[in-house]
Amino acid sequence: MPERDLHYLAELAAQLRVDSVRAAAAAGSGHPTSSMSAADLMAVLFACHLRYDFADPGNPANDHLIFSKGHASPLLYSLYKAAGAVDDEELLTFRKRGSRLEGHPTPRLPWVDVATGSLGQGLPVGVGVALAARLERLPYRVWVLCGDSELAEGSIWEAAEHAGDEGLANLTVIVDVNRLGQRGPTRHGWDTGAYARRFGAFGWHTIEIDGHDPGQIDFALSDACNTRRRPTVILAKTRKGEGVLEVENREGAHGKALKDPDKAVEELGGVRDLRVEVHRPDEAPAPFRFDDGALELPAYKTGDSVATRTAYGEALAALGAARGDVVALDGEVGDSTKTELFAEAFPERFFQMYIAEQQLVAAAVGLQVRGWKPYAATFAAFLTRAYDFVRMAGVSGASIRLVGSHAGVAIGEDGPSQMGLEDLAMMRPVHGSTVLYPCDANQAAALVAEMADLEGVSYLRTTRGATPVIYEPGERFPVGGSRVLRRSAEDRVTIVAAGVTVHEALAAADELAAADVPVGVIDLYSIKPVDAAALAEAATTTGNLITVEDHRLEGGLGDAVLEAVSELGPRVVQLGVSGLPASATPEEQLADARIDRRAIVAAVKRLL
Amino acid sequence: MPERDLHYLAELAAQLRVDSVRAAAAAGSGHPTSSMSAADLMAVLFACHLRYDFADPGNPANDHLIFSKGHASPLLYSLYKAAGAVDDEELLTFRKRGSRLEGHPTPRLPWVDVATGSLGQGLPVGVGVALAARLERLPYRVWVLCGDSELAEGSIWEAAEHAGDEGLANLTVIVDVNRLGQRGPTRHGWDTGAYARRFGAFGWHTIEIDGHDPGQIDFALSDACNTRRRPTVILAKTRKGEGVLEVENREGAHGKALKDPDKAVEELGGVRDLRVEVHRPDEAPAPFRFDDGALELPAYKTGDSVATRTAYGEALAALGAARGDVVALDGEVGDSTKTELFAEAFPERFFQMYIAEQQLVAAAVGLQVRGWKPYAATFAAFLTRAYDFVRMAGVSGASIRLVGSHAGVAIGEDGPSQMGLEDLAMMRPVHGSTVLYPCDANQAAALVAEMADLEGVSYLRTTRGATPVIYEPGERFPVGGSRVLRRSAEDRVTIVAAGVTVHEALAAADELAAADVPVGVIDLYSIKPVDAAALAEAATTTGNLITVEDHRLEGGLGDAVLEAVSELGPRVVQLGVSGLPASATPEEQLADARIDRRAIVAAVKRLL
Repeated sequence: MPERDLHYLAELAAQLRVDSVRAAAAAGSGHPTSSMSAADLMAVLFACHLRYDFADPGNPANDHLIFSKGHASPLLYSLYKAAGAVDDEELLTFRKRGSRLEGHPTPRLPWVDVATGSLGQGLPVGVGVALAARLERLPYRVWVLCGDSELAEGSIWEAAEHAGDEGLANLTVIVDVNRLGQRGPTRHGWDTGAYARRFGAFGWHTIEIDGHDPGQIDFALSDACNTRRRPTVILAKTRKGEGVLEVENREGAHGKALKDPDKAVEELGGVRDLRVEVHRPDEAPAPFRFDDGALELPAYKTGDSVATRTAYGEALAALGAARGDVVALDGEVGDSTKTELFAEAFPERFFQMYIAEQQLVAAAVGLQVRGWKPYAATFAAFLTRAYDFVRMAGVSGASIRLVGSHAGVAIGEDGPSQMGLEDLAMMRPVHGSTVLYPCDANQAAALVAEMADLEGVSYLRTTRGATPVIYEPGERFPVGGSRVLRRSAEDRVTIVAAGVTVHEALAAADELAAADVPVGVIDLYSIKPVDAAALAEAATTTGNLITVEDHRLEGGLGDAVLEAVSELGPRVVQLGVSGLPASATPEEQLADARIDRRAIVAAVKRLL
Repeated sequence: MPERDLHYLAELAAQLRVDSVRAAAAAGSGHPTSSMSAADLMAVLFACHLRYDFADPGNPANDHLIFSKGHASPLLYSLYKAAGAVDDEELLTFRKRGSRLEGHPTPRLPWVDVATGSLGQGLPVGVGVALAARLERLPYRVWVLCGDSELAEGSIWEAAEHAGDEGLANLTVIVDVNRLGQRGPTRHGWDTGAYARRFGAFGWHTIEIDGHDPGQIDFALSDACNTRRRPTVILAKTRKGEGVLEVENREGAHGKALKDPDKAVEELGGVRDLRVEVHRPDEAPAPFRFDDGALELPAYKTGDSVATRTAYGEALAALGAARGDVVALDGEVGDSTKTELFAEAFPERFFQMYIAEQQLVAAAVGLQVRGWKPYAATFAAFLTRAYDFVRMAGVSGASIRLVGSHAGVAIGEDGPSQMGLEDLAMMRPVHGSTVLYPCDANQAAALVAEMADLEGVSYLRTTRGATPVIYEPGERFPVGGSRVLRRSAEDRVTIVAAGVTVHEALAAADELAAADVPVGVIDLYSIKPVDAAALAEAATTTGNLITVEDHRLEGGLGDAVLEAVSELGPRVVQLGVSGLPASATPEEQLADARIDRRAIVAAVKRLL
């Protein structure tokens, strides 16, 4: 690299440091020192290797850059400024109310794919974006900037395993090994070899460099671009707070503005106004998409018994035939969730993520960055493993579809470790989420199709055992709706149920009707958004509601109902799981948890 | 090893296979094939290396055996039978209602330390038990049986990193590499070298063997016992369903009883009734415990402003001086959670788990197996990373104390990725959990002390910013209680709040009182169990409740209140976070989320 270029790169890096210091100073908070360590790395990336059209963030040929160390947001925003995407005035709005330049990056900025700030997530999401490139046959690259501290996260090694195994040569991770975490030294300090051994064992190409030497950085980035059949990790030894004596390589300087920013700026050579000309990507072919076709959802005969998980698998396969943008992911339980039916029909659009639920959800998030419609399924219980990823998908506004099978005590003999009993409570508070819980196969199939165009995180809860088909094929079940299954003017109670408990509620209603106690039954298949109007009507007319769910009492269907009617003041009795189940048959489980027909009848009698 | 011993070991392994087949046959379900692959491994362990007194499971010198592959429960129970701990009749109650022999092991059995069945958890918990051995200066060993599929879980690599770094030579992992996961081949099949490279890179001693050769197994287990300064992983190549042609090394034979169990038993040489004499542990010194002292909780002056996270750190340090059994764990944010105050005072009892929240919680679970009282803290938002571990801790009945700092939008500028907004919703449904949320420093300190003797999973939610001290030092705050802060006979509404919103509620009440609208205020510091009596009284007397919380509307304090009063039918208005916050000051955040004093006043006016 010619001398003048090296000089320019050093100057650009200095500007990024200066602007990081200035942005944090204007905010009075933020992470300037974590930005300063990675300034040279990003300066060389932007000036020499990134292919990105800032004027057209939607260009399919654009590279993708993910700041897994999201707290280095001052550096990211300083890069945007150098690239001419934001101006100096906006830079100084950092962390202020109304600014797009938040404490940690979010897709409120058009150049940010996903929100980061929960460490260890950017890389697994990057794996998903890299998988998308392969699917759509585009030559873009995915660059991920990681901190060294976050390499302690297991999700990093789920990603390392998956990317290594897939040979994702279009993925490059740059690790800013500044040796200092938030509260002190990291486990491995500057021992980049420790990280290289680990990534190497997972099949990666590894490069160890001085992260403040533009020539070494340029060589490493070129090497990454030229490496085939393997992802590359660049382990860059850096100094936190590089360039300012007050904070350079010092503990106790994490996550705060510098004490004397003016002096720091002076020490860094003063304010500059350099531009970086980021290369626009070469013309690329249009993204490959699979063919669309007609949607023919499976049709189940009323009276038959079919598991909603089976309907999920069959509907997903039907949807796959209808829509080329639908993809499916499995956490190595596809024979249980029935994702295998899609996998058999559309192997190119199927992703086996093995037992790595964080990577499962993260890959879905990465795939939707490029417009794919991912459905990711595992046991409802095991989605708890990925809760932080689901939460952050909500912050990202990512449109992903999650499916949790084997919900509730109704699974029977396998016992509590396999029972999804907290999933509704977990999914409802996720920002922008939709939560669906079908009770029969036709309803499940309809909701699977409905989910394809939902925005945000949507969740479908399915059941292991077969349940009676009570709806006709082709009936519509709009999100936010409900179904009144029993109603009369004489109803003194309305039972609100979903999933398996709908059938218990119907049986209870029949038994009560025979004893001249007419009760209403609502199938609340849409837990969020909830059909507040229907619930309000029931609450007003009967004045008494009983909610019954195969889920813990806290946070699920019952609470959704209470929230909807709380200002109306009906009496509501909640039936749900409160103890610790053990092994038993499904029927015994429902009885022991007091959510079966008998318990419902008893609750009605107690209430009246 | 003499020939007759090899013969005995082969016979014992055959018996374990036979009994696994029989147990699953009696149940009509279960995982016999996953048991059969590991039978030789466990036969040699039980006969030659395990040190365990089945008559005295509480013997501190006992080894610990954790079936991380919990679905191999038929093998575990067959081992118990061979050891004389359960009889054949009980073995055949497998998976039946009322049996201790559940589908996946739980501590309902006195020899089981922790529930397993969610894969990838046994090893991280084993790391915690191994750390406990070091703390209490006992020579017991920790043996963990893993499946190969579960090595895809990131939590395994968090554990590998921690155990390797700590040099936990008392920890041995035996991996049953049977090459077949639930729905087909694993990623690496029988390539034990792939796993060896990975564990080796993380600093482990690795041994690759034929898992059906008792001599090799014995040698490997001896080698593990003789290895110093490093944990050992034994990578054993095995065949799933070994010994029965119908299922041996075949896909599609996972998780089901054999079709023809009688034939399988015959093929395995018939039913045997061998006993295995498990060596009792040598006499060991009493477990080391740190000294107890007097408890002098920090005292904060009313009117001062102190963050509850600071009170947590100071109270924890005080508790550490009072109780030698208290230990603390940090997820590399101890300067934020204030765990650092304990770390400075009691470095021997402090565990830095780095940014690995699954291992953080798992280590706490492991430490409590041996009677320690762990407090594990990170940001409330990042506890979502460990939700499956928290869930399973509930199933295990583990007594651990979790602390989530930086709760809610009140953190201010850092933005949504750092805000704990789903933590109450996540913690409340956990089986046997306690959920606490203090509003001032004295209350926080009292609750920290209160938690020490709580059983099950308890959770304390703390706040980043300083809040006014409103309670006197030394006041008691029993779990399940609440505090009435404003009440008059004329109250037309009662505001129920906790944490930061208590102070907003008080300000609103004062403003309303000045306008002749008297309202009550309840500090609901115990979210679970909740003070149903106090809430019922408020609901009955004023008829109107307003709940206000710095948490999402779904699943938190508001829902806890609704659950408590739902059968009484008061009108309840819920205030909480519904949109997606960005960066702003704490005051702006509370206002934007409409949970500040102004929003409360408006809600009261709207309600009346």
